[in-house]
Amino acid sequence: CVERAVTRVVTPGTLTEAALLRGADNNFVAALAVDDDTDGPLDGGREYGLALLDVSTGDFYATGLASLSAVADEAGRFVPSEVVVGPDIDDDAVAEAFPAEAMVTRYDSVAFDADVARERVGTYFADAGETLASDAELRACGALLAYAEYTRGGYHEDAGAVDDGAVDESGLDPAEVPAEPRLSYLNHLTRYDPREYMLLDAVAVRSLELFEPRHVHGAAGTALADVIDETACALGRRELTDWLRRPLLDTDRIAARQDAVGELVRDVRTRERLHERLADVYDIERLVARVSRGRANARDLRSLHETLAVVPDLRDVLVDAEGEPLQRLRERLDPVADVREAIDAAVAEDPPPELTEGGVIRKGYDERLDELRATEREGKRWIDELEASERERTGVDSLKVGHNQVHGYYIEVTDPNLDAVPDEYQRRQTLKNSERFVTPALKEREDEILRATERADDLEYELFRDLRDEVAAEAERIQALAAAVADLDALVALATVAAEHGYTRPTVGADRFAIEGGRHPVVERAEERFVPNGTDLDPGTIAVITGPNMSGKSTYMRQVALVCVLAQVGSFVPATAAQLPVVDRVFTRVGASDDIAGGRSTFMVEMTEVADILRAATPRSLVLLDEVGRGTSTADGFALARAVTEHLHDEVGATVLFATHHHDLTGLAADLPDAVNRHFPATERDGEVVFRHDLQPGAATASYGVEVADAAGVPESVVARAHELLARETADGAGQPDESAG
Amino acid sequence: CVERAVTRVVTPGTLTEAALLRGADNNFVAALAVDDDTDGPLDGGREYGLALLDVSTGDFYATGLASLSAVADEAGRFVPSEVVVGPDIDDDAVAEAFPAEAMVTRYDSVAFDADVARERVGTYFADAGETLASDAELRACGALLAYAEYTRGGYHEDAGAVDDGAVDESGLDPAEVPAEPRLSYLNHLTRYDPREYMLLDAVAVRSLELFEPRHVHGAAGTALADVIDETACALGRRELTDWLRRPLLDTDRIAARQDAVGELVRDVRTRERLHERLADVYDIERLVARVSRGRANARDLRSLHETLAVVPDLRDVLVDAEGEPLQRLRERLDPVADVREAIDAAVAEDPPPELTEGGVIRKGYDERLDELRATEREGKRWIDELEASERERTGVDSLKVGHNQVHGYYIEVTDPNLDAVPDEYQRRQTLKNSERFVTPALKEREDEILRATERADDLEYELFRDLRDEVAAEAERIQALAAAVADLDALVALATVAAEHGYTRPTVGADRFAIEGGRHPVVERAEERFVPNGTDLDPGTIAVITGPNMSGKSTYMRQVALVCVLAQVGSFVPATAAQLPVVDRVFTRVGASDDIAGGRSTFMVEMTEVADILRAATPRSLVLLDEVGRGTSTADGFALARAVTEHLHDEVGATVLFATHHHDLTGLAADLPDAVNRHFPATERDGEVVFRHDLQPGAATASYGVEVADAAGVPESVVARAHELLARETADGAGQPDESAG
Repeated sequence: CVERAVTRVVTPGTLTEAALLRGADNNFVAALAVDDDTDGPLDGGREYGLALLDVSTGDFYATGLASLSAVADEAGRFVPSEVVVGPDIDDDAVAEAFPAEAMVTRYDSVAFDADVARERVGTYFADAGETLASDAELRACGALLAYAEYTRGGYHEDAGAVDDGAVDESGLDPAEVPAEPRLSYLNHLTRYDPREYMLLDAVAVRSLELFEPRHVHGAAGTALADVIDETACALGRRELTDWLRRPLLDTDRIAARQDAVGELVRDVRTRERLHERLADVYDIERLVARVSRGRANARDLRSLHETLAVVPDLRDVLVDAEGEPLQRLRERLDPVADVREAIDAAVAEDPPPELTEGGVIRKGYDERLDELRATEREGKRWIDELEASERERTGVDSLKVGHNQVHGYYIEVTDPNLDAVPDEYQRRQTLKNSERFVTPALKEREDEILRATERADDLEYELFRDLRDEVAAEAERIQALAAAVADLDALVALATVAAEHGYTRPTVGADRFAIEGGRHPVVERAEERFVPNGTDLDPGTIAVITGPNMSGKSTYMRQVALVCVLAQVGSFVPATAAQLPVVDRVFTRVGASDDIAGGRSTFMVEMTEVADILRAATPRSLVLLDEVGRGTSTADGFALARAVTEHLHDEVGATVLFATHHHDLTGLAADLPDAVNRHFPATERDGEVVFRHDLQPGAATASYGVEVADAAGVPESVVARAHELLARETADGAGQPDESAG
Repeated sequence: CVERAVTRVVTPGTLTEAALLRGADNNFVAALAVDDDTDGPLDGGREYGLALLDVSTGDFYATGLASLSAVADEAGRFVPSEVVVGPDIDDDAVAEAFPAEAMVTRYDSVAFDADVARERVGTYFADAGETLASDAELRACGALLAYAEYTRGGYHEDAGAVDDGAVDESGLDPAEVPAEPRLSYLNHLTRYDPREYMLLDAVAVRSLELFEPRHVHGAAGTALADVIDETACALGRRELTDWLRRPLLDTDRIAARQDAVGELVRDVRTRERLHERLADVYDIERLVARVSRGRANARDLRSLHETLAVVPDLRDVLVDAEGEPLQRLRERLDPVADVREAIDAAVAEDPPPELTEGGVIRKGYDERLDELRATEREGKRWIDELEASERERTGVDSLKVGHNQVHGYYIEVTDPNLDAVPDEYQRRQTLKNSERFVTPALKEREDEILRATERADDLEYELFRDLRDEVAAEAERIQALAAAVADLDALVALATVAAEHGYTRPTVGADRFAIEGGRHPVVERAEERFVPNGTDLDPGTIAVITGPNMSGKSTYMRQVALVCVLAQVGSFVPATAAQLPVVDRVFTRVGASDDIAGGRSTFMVEMTEVADILRAATPRSLVLLDEVGRGTSTADGFALARAVTEHLHDEVGATVLFATHHHDLTGLAADLPDAVNRHFPATERDGEVVFRHDLQPGAATASYGVEVADAAGVPESVVARAHELLARETADGAGQPDESAG
């Protein structure tokens, strides 16, 4: 077997094997560096540089942040599977900044040195000095590049024949050893300012189920990313994910995406033809990364060829595009025709995955190769005919010519016929009932075939590598094309969702939240009859939402947040009409979980999340509170809920949707100028309580918890007794339960 | 390279590769069958047969159950990663019975046929007819065996040389093809009656964190299995896991384990020596499974040898054991000396992982082999000397002898010296600055070496397989040994935990829950100063537990349940003294999670769990309720909590620990004869509230939620306002917040 040199280090964040990565999703490795900020605006503070790289696609991001909690907020968008840090970041800091699932790699402090990093980053991105805003960002980028180089795939990987401890290696191709460690698939650095994007921290990403549905009782639901993913190819899927991860704040950029989506919604024919052709696009971003590392095989290049063949069609379809955004996109679709033609000329149509066993290069591409293959064929034909001619010569009809891996070709004669064996037969192997022979002529032919095959295989491999290097030299153009295709696919996907599910174009940048007939984009798909609900709130309003269990309070609140997220992504939204202000951040305080061994109670976790919201929210934020103060006594919980709400109202001025069973909180509407009540009503019909899902002004009168318990299967005697207890309490005059007694 | 025949189907439940399995844990595949119960006690009902197999260890279980929810309860113990069902089990039934993470495989209905299953099961377990209690069990076992056979590893896997499309395969070993599909590593079927074990369903397993700590805010805690896992080897770890999964109900069996643990607690020297030797035990259960499938390599057999070498030492250490349980265990430790000696005689001390490249068999084991290796060495020595002799002969000092994979041995001469090349040199390859040659003598030697090497490698492989078959024939004895070693390691582990963490031997089968100085086995490790708490309750008592947030209500309740679980495992318990009744099942209703897209609210989930408890609890059950009725209005929640408690008290008679912030529920103690109050007090000191963690009789007076919010970082102005609101409420006479108004 072939010896393989160990030239790769495999870590969770630097995987590139398609089979080990989850489909089209990104897989990020992050690096973090910190500096004392001596002259910046945070005088005396610290500044953090965060770099993120998907080595399988070359997606490379950098940003600067002023605190570990801000790092945690940004990391929440990307969910890196691995984190690289130097000695200046201690374990506590890592735990605060990154999800616990990420593997932590402590890496060489030299790589984090500012000068070393500057030089390394400079070899990749000439303008990095201007792009990056601080030394911390530079150091994070430099270290991440160093780590990516360290873990990258080697060039020996698919070498067919490697000298095994011989005296001299010069007989083999010197191009096998990379001249320098530069990763050629990395051509673009996206330095972004988190302030340009709506902030979605890990808590919000999780509770709005943007990317991962929550598993409840083992059953997986659906995430927002899944329901809007009408992309045709992996490139578009990742682009759309990135848009969802970083919704825009700039209304011009939002409008440009909306224009493109709008044109594609109207022009069904264009949308469908684009989608159909985009379905033939391979993941050329990852493919080019493999080409650049010398790890692409012939099938990869054929896939690249097929993708490039799609581009002229896309350009044709877009030739009549009316709006500027689509016209500009068309201009970015470079067919890279030279590369497409070079691949088509050289690579066989259905090549094998191995590069060193022939069949990779087309007949007619190289004269020497064609000659060697002719010699091989001729020799094999001779052997094929040998069985017949030897049977005739010897008179042994059962004589057979065969081949095995150990002994090569042989002539087999059964024991009863051994007398007929000619003199020049040389015995090679004795079996139970027969003997195997060779002849000098047979061995000579075999040798000839072997030599021709080996030379042809080597030559094919050499020709293939030359071609691959040629393609690698155009990596930048192909990546630019991939980016344009990704944008187009994402826009077509948004248009498809909008057209198929009745989304409308929202006005973003309005002075109020005015949504008519809004729906929850995920829940509406799961339910047969989803009841739409309107929203009409001035920014800065506190809406206290009451209603029975299961009436849809949580769904409604998330629906409003998801409409805002989609709108700032540039998507149309599930509503009949929508006007929305620009939201800088969505906060969520939803659900509960215990942390018993960690020493923090459910309630402590809840209050910590509330404290974070009170500290960080702004007048442009949207805050979802799903019951605050549930984990303590009623009196304490009520006092806290009210104080929190007052603070958000008086001091922060954020827009708040607050779902609660504390019916007392509905009194806030009377006390605070910008507080309003909304509720889900329930009606009794034929003695049965019917929950309605249409939101109404005003406060609810009851929660109907006992009816829900009944529906959940609690024994009838228990339900009856609960009703009896409830009735007795209500009959007790002022005698509502005395909640803080004891 | 070697061609591999596709002879294995890899599925999540039938993995055997150590690298892909999570450490020492079991990996189960389950099969389920159902029958109408025509003559059984459930006349007209249905009976379910559940079979479970860990193909990597051969652990095989079967049991019978009367309902899908009982199947779900049992499956909760084993958490199978794959489930095999026939056409009689529909998707809804699968969803009800198994966790959603499990892969579902619909398998051939013939395999589930009773007659087919009877025959198949009979070939494995002669006494299966008596062991299994119903046709459903038989059919589940038969189908699971069929599936294991279908997915099992083939025998071709590590064949070194395979004929490549030749006319005749008889030149190679016919033993490569298995004569029959029987899986020889399966020798024992454990048929158990769920009624012999404490029932721990999936909800209880999860909320007591028996095996998996819950991840909260990304941080992983510790599971009970981790803190008691002082096992030295994988065998013991799995055994201990199985004990924890199925705590005993039989007090004699419990006492036997306690006796063994007790002796090992007292005899430190014995315990430490056993632990030390057990650390050298390999995972021979899995190893034997690989041997039986013909997938073990030489290193595996060496590992088996090393493990067998440990057994005599274990027997020596136990020779003075006093108690009967340890004496009996010593008798079960069969050294299997014949196998150990056979391996040691044949297999090299540090063999390579490949079987077909030589180095596997010891020198001196086989005469033919030694001769072939001598020929090989001799030829290589000749070639080693060739460079010197040819340099002398030709006068070319830079002449080199080398080797590469494609051309074999060659003599290399640089261009300036080509004139000195003798006539018999034959040109083979032209490089940039030199030429490579061969000579007939060199090629002849090369051929000789090659032939000797190939024959020797083949012979080694043959000898190895003979030995492996010999070992496979003793699989049953080795598995019995593995079981004994596993028991011993688990007992030593329990003794180690008991000795190092001050556990005491509980009396199991007492008529009350009397725990002195009880601790939570996991939390006490994480906290610097853990406050122990006593418990003294008659079975059938309802204990209403109140106290401030974070005082430790949840921890206390789980601690009582974990002490009961450990006691019935046969372990000592974290307490200064304990008397406990036998508990048939632990129920938990703890924590909350939302299921928004699924249309079930948090509260609905909670009530469903409560309904399950009310239906299934018995007077011998222990029920933990951590706040019931939290997800609805206060009035509804209170009425439900009270009605549920009354039902458990009046109708069920279970022992209940009920933690709550509904201070009104403390009134139950006055109304119900078997209800008592317990609380965690808080004291004020220097104006600061101090939470105490020592449980006291009576009810708490307040929950101190606002103080917790303060500690969580909620801004001071908000905390101050909450205090003000609380004070105002309290001042309003009877004016506690009117909870059900609105």
